[in-house]
Amino acid sequence: MNPILEIFSQGEEIVTGHVVDTNAAWLSQQAVQLGFTVSRHTAVGDNLNDLIGLLKEISARADCCICTGGLGPTSDDLTTAAVSEGFRVPLLFDPTAFASIEQYFAKRNKTMPALNRKQALLPEGSVRLDNEWGTAPGFALQHGRCWFVFLPGVPSEMKAIFQAQVRLMLNQRFSLQPGTLVCIKTFGLGESEIQLRMHNIDIPEPVQLGFRASMSEVQTKLWFPPNYPNDRMTALVDTVSALLGDNVFAIDGLGEATGDLVFVVDQLMQSQGQTLALVETASQGLIASLCTGSAWLLESRYEISLARLAQKLSLTVQGDVVTTATAIAEQTRQTSGASLVLVQLYEGDFAALNNKDELVTLHTVLLAGNAKYHSQNSVAGLGKRKQNQAAQLALDLLRRYLQFGRI
Amino acid sequence: MNPILEIFSQGEEIVTGHVVDTNAAWLSQQAVQLGFTVSRHTAVGDNLNDLIGLLKEISARADCCICTGGLGPTSDDLTTAAVSEGFRVPLLFDPTAFASIEQYFAKRNKTMPALNRKQALLPEGSVRLDNEWGTAPGFALQHGRCWFVFLPGVPSEMKAIFQAQVRLMLNQRFSLQPGTLVCIKTFGLGESEIQLRMHNIDIPEPVQLGFRASMSEVQTKLWFPPNYPNDRMTALVDTVSALLGDNVFAIDGLGEATGDLVFVVDQLMQSQGQTLALVETASQGLIASLCTGSAWLLESRYEISLARLAQKLSLTVQGDVVTTATAIAEQTRQTSGASLVLVQLYEGDFAALNNKDELVTLHTVLLAGNAKYHSQNSVAGLGKRKQNQAAQLALDLLRRYLQFGRI
Repeated sequence: MNPILEIFSQGEEIVTGHVVDTNAAWLSQQAVQLGFTVSRHTAVGDNLNDLIGLLKEISARADCCICTGGLGPTSDDLTTAAVSEGFRVPLLFDPTAFASIEQYFAKRNKTMPALNRKQALLPEGSVRLDNEWGTAPGFALQHGRCWFVFLPGVPSEMKAIFQAQVRLMLNQRFSLQPGTLVCIKTFGLGESEIQLRMHNIDIPEPVQLGFRASMSEVQTKLWFPPNYPNDRMTALVDTVSALLGDNVFAIDGLGEATGDLVFVVDQLMQSQGQTLALVETASQGLIASLCTGSAWLLESRYEISLARLAQKLSLTVQGDVVTTATAIAEQTRQTSGASLVLVQLYEGDFAALNNKDELVTLHTVLLAGNAKYHSQNSVAGLGKRKQNQAAQLALDLLRRYLQFGRI
Repeated sequence: MNPILEIFSQGEEIVTGHVVDTNAAWLSQQAVQLGFTVSRHTAVGDNLNDLIGLLKEISARADCCICTGGLGPTSDDLTTAAVSEGFRVPLLFDPTAFASIEQYFAKRNKTMPALNRKQALLPEGSVRLDNEWGTAPGFALQHGRCWFVFLPGVPSEMKAIFQAQVRLMLNQRFSLQPGTLVCIKTFGLGESEIQLRMHNIDIPEPVQLGFRASMSEVQTKLWFPPNYPNDRMTALVDTVSALLGDNVFAIDGLGEATGDLVFVVDQLMQSQGQTLALVETASQGLIASLCTGSAWLLESRYEISLARLAQKLSLTVQGDVVTTATAIAEQTRQTSGASLVLVQLYEGDFAALNNKDELVTLHTVLLAGNAKYHSQNSVAGLGKRKQNQAAQLALDLLRRYLQFGRI
């Protein structure tokens, strides 16, 4: 049996819905990967009695609890007070914490406000969790059945402290047996098509299969229990990947972590020393903006329609969109000097593109040396959805070329 | 005293962190606007005992609870069973719900799977909440102190049912006295600068003041209690807005809802019949991609550096960036025929732009008829942050011109 962990978030901005609690989801993923069973998330506002009641409840039913928020310097930051009152432990002044808070302000050429002294008061017997990224130190202590870890609510500080100190602490205090989650990421197949292809595979009893679909990828997830034989794990992942074919752009969980489609394209462009010039219509700048900071993207242009684009390049639109796209790509290659040119086009007018009830045909053409690749897709839905699909389809065509030398 | 409301989310994907619980935040905002005090969010997985225990707890401490998830047809959808067992009410077959589920499949030329019959079983005495957008009907019933509303977990279905049926139901069942939340949205002032400017304003006792800062705006929030005199509310909002000056781009809560900076720019461009041609460097396609579906954006180009951009346009880079930017804008106006041209540039090289420790100077130049406007800002941080700042600064300069005829 895995130890039971709960997530507890504190803050008026969370219960009133002004902030979506992304901390809870992030911490849960970390905890599951470490080998905990996460049983519950709770969020309450800035109310001392609610906080005390909840901390006591959790101390009786969970083995571990990670709490975020309420460690700030102001009067509505009540978490430490709730711990002291609820668990009947005095707060002690921690000189190391105080020095670190003073240093935080000194580095920024500011005087520490008197209010911040409060953040150096920690429950007696707790373990201090140093915060190099902000003023609020975290702390951890046992009460009842439960090991409580208190972290600041600012996501960047919370994540940094978790990674630098909490992960190791949890591994040391608990006897954790993490399983392995392998995530096969694809673009180009729907979830139902994937399920159909996997119909004849025998997934052994202890392995759990799941799917998650978003606009930019479908994830096929295989969860293997602790101590599952490595060779059998690899063999199953290989079998599934083979069935999904060239649609697989990354596999997470077996070795180095990978990223999304943009990350994979970025790695391939860099390692192959390619450069790209881009022409966008339906994707309206989205492909370029997704490739933030990629030095291989030399230039990009957006034109509201194919007609306008052709006119600007003094080209006549041919009956066949692909012929026009190729002429655009060739001219762009000459003026840009890029090794690859990607042209993203749509048929029809701008109003149809942004009408959710109209189906629009998208084209992507890639020019690479003497070779030319073309893909064509029909997309429906809101303008934002069509924009996103156009960008992902173009990036995926580029990924396939870079990975396989064909599409 | 406002009635107390809790949010309860059910689903393994939420407690394991695979899905961020955006439903809870959305529902909380709606509830606060209606006049409830939201006291707690809880999420649990697919465990019948956890569900029953929690429903009983909530029935004793809240006046209203909105629950999402667990209404699907499969064996891990346990919410209805938990209600039946926990509250000791039998489930009855609802012919209207069943007909609606059958119709859902018929419309899609599909046969209803036998599994879906389960979704037509509703607790005796509950009010059915019809779902025109999916297969799972919601329902509502009283238990103990609490009026429970059960909705499907799919956000689009949940929101549609809430808006069509639940809002009215809650207004009828509870004596709600909503306050008014006014949100003044600015770009160009930091939170501390705003606090400084407001230092001498007298905020009357019952009014609550709050701030929220993100990369793209700072919100100054004024919450007025029910029955606060309208003229005094308007006077205070006017005083605060005047202090924040031209940095205010929208005020929410007094009349029609507004949106973000892009929304405001879109409205102004449309109402003034302007068209835009865009040149981006540091913002790398982000300005264009944020303006999805805006017919007034005729074209956009991205070049990796000013040097490359000038070379493509056969211009010599002048010592003064603004002179070069103006030449670029003038050439772009000629070739594009747009009424406005916005040029976004940065000083230095691409590596510095994407080095989080380097400060980079950003320039925006707007050409409007014979007038030329220029703004200059220093930005530090990750490449993604600089990209976003460059885009927001450019959009804000455009907004100021459209709103005031100056910047």
